[in-house]
Amino acid sequence: MRLAELSERSGVSTSMIKYYLRQGMLAPGRKVGATTADYDESHLRRLRLVRALIEVGRLPVATAKEVLGHVDDDSLGRTIRLGAAMWALPHGPDPDDSDEFVIAARQEVDRLLGNLGWTTARELGSLSPDHRALVVAVATLRRLGFTWDADLMEPYAELMHQVAVRDLDFVETQPTDAEKAESAVAATILFEPALRALHRLAQEEESARRYGL
Amino acid sequence: MRLAELSERSGVSTSMIKYYLRQGMLAPGRKVGATTADYDESHLRRLRLVRALIEVGRLPVATAKEVLGHVDDDSLGRTIRLGAAMWALPHGPDPDDSDEFVIAARQEVDRLLGNLGWTTARELGSLSPDHRALVVAVATLRRLGFTWDADLMEPYAELMHQVAVRDLDFVETQPTDAEKAESAVAATILFEPALRALHRLAQEEESARRYGL
Repeated sequence: MRLAELSERSGVSTSMIKYYLRQGMLAPGRKVGATTADYDESHLRRLRLVRALIEVGRLPVATAKEVLGHVDDDSLGRTIRLGAAMWALPHGPDPDDSDEFVIAARQEVDRLLGNLGWTTARELGSLSPDHRALVVAVATLRRLGFTWDADLMEPYAELMHQVAVRDLDFVETQPTDAEKAESAVAATILFEPALRALHRLAQEEESARRYGL
Repeated sequence: MRLAELSERSGVSTSMIKYYLRQGMLAPGRKVGATTADYDESHLRRLRLVRALIEVGRLPVATAKEVLGHVDDDSLGRTIRLGAAMWALPHGPDPDDSDEFVIAARQEVDRLLGNLGWTTARELGSLSPDHRALVVAVATLRRLGFTWDADLMEPYAELMHQVAVRDLDFVETQPTDAEKAESAVAATILFEPALRALHRLAQEEESARRYGL
C-alpha cells in the first residue's frame, strides 16, 4: 500500500509516519520510485504498536524507541527479548533499601517467590523492575497499616499466574518471534486497563451479591 | 494520644493534620483542655487512608474529600456506600458513543456480562465508571487490531471474580461498616499496584518456564 493508505488504515497522519520513519521506529517501505514506497501489513502492525505505546501508554518517544529496539533485536532469546522490551516500559520509583518497611517487604516477597516455586523471578530478584515494583507496593501497604505478607499474597499470585498462562497462550498464537514480542508489549499496555476494569466490575458484582444494592 | 503522637505514628506532619481537620477529612479529637485534644486509633486509621489517597493514589484533595464523604455517609446501604466511594476515585476518559469501535466494544461487554450472569454490572451498565472504563479499553484494543471479544474476555473475568471474592473476604474482616468502606478504598488504591506487579512477575516466570532465559 502507499503512504496515504497506510495513514488511513493506521489512523496515524502521514507527517507522523514520516517522523517515525526518520526515528527508525518504523522500517522503510519497499522503494517503488524516486519518491514513493510500498508498505505492507507489518508496517500497519508496527504503527498500531507505536500508537499503543505513545497514545495509550503515554510513553515518551525516547522510551517507545527503546522498547521497539528490544522488540526488533533478534539476537536475543525469547524470554530476554520479551523481558527487555517489557522492562523498558516505565515503572514507578525504586525501593529505598534503608527503609524498614522495604526491608520487611523484600523478605515477604522473597518468601512468597520461594513458596510459589517461581525460581526465575526469585533468581532475577531486584534486577526485574516488576520485582522492585512489588516490593514498593508491599512496603506501602505495610507502612499504612496493612499486614500484607507472603501467605496473604500467595493466592493472588496463583490467580495472576493463571492470567499470565492465558497471556502467553495468546502471544504464542502470533506467527513470528517479532510479532510475539510486539503483541506481548501491546497486550501489556492495552490489556492492563481492561483487566483493572474487570477487577473493579467484579468487586461491584460480588458486593451486590453479598449485600444487595 | 496527643497531636504530636498522632503525627509521629501516622507520618503526617502536625500542620497537615490541622489542615485535614479544617477540611473535615478528619474528625475532631476529644477536647481535653482549651488547646489540646485527644485522638484515637480511628484518627490514625483515617490519616493512613488520607495518605493512601493523596500520596499513593495522587488524588487531588477535593477528590479525596469526596471519596471520604461517601465513606462517612452511614445513610447508604453497604454496596452503594462502597460503590459511591470507589466511583468517586479518578477514572479515565468516557467512551465516545459515536465511535464504531466503542459501539462494538459495548456490545461485547454487554454480551460478556450476560454470559457471566453478572446481573448488577449489566443493570448498572454505563452508570458505573468501571463499565465505561472496560468499554474504552476494549474499544482501544479493537481499534489497534486486537479482536477482543466476549469469549476471549470471559476466562479473564472469571479469574478477576475470584480475586474480587478474596478482596471482599478481606474487607469483611473489618469490624464496622465505616472500616469496611475505608479498607475497600485503601485496598483499591494500594493493592492494584501490587496486583499489577504480581501479574507481570508471573508473565516473566511463565515465559522463562516455556522458553528458558
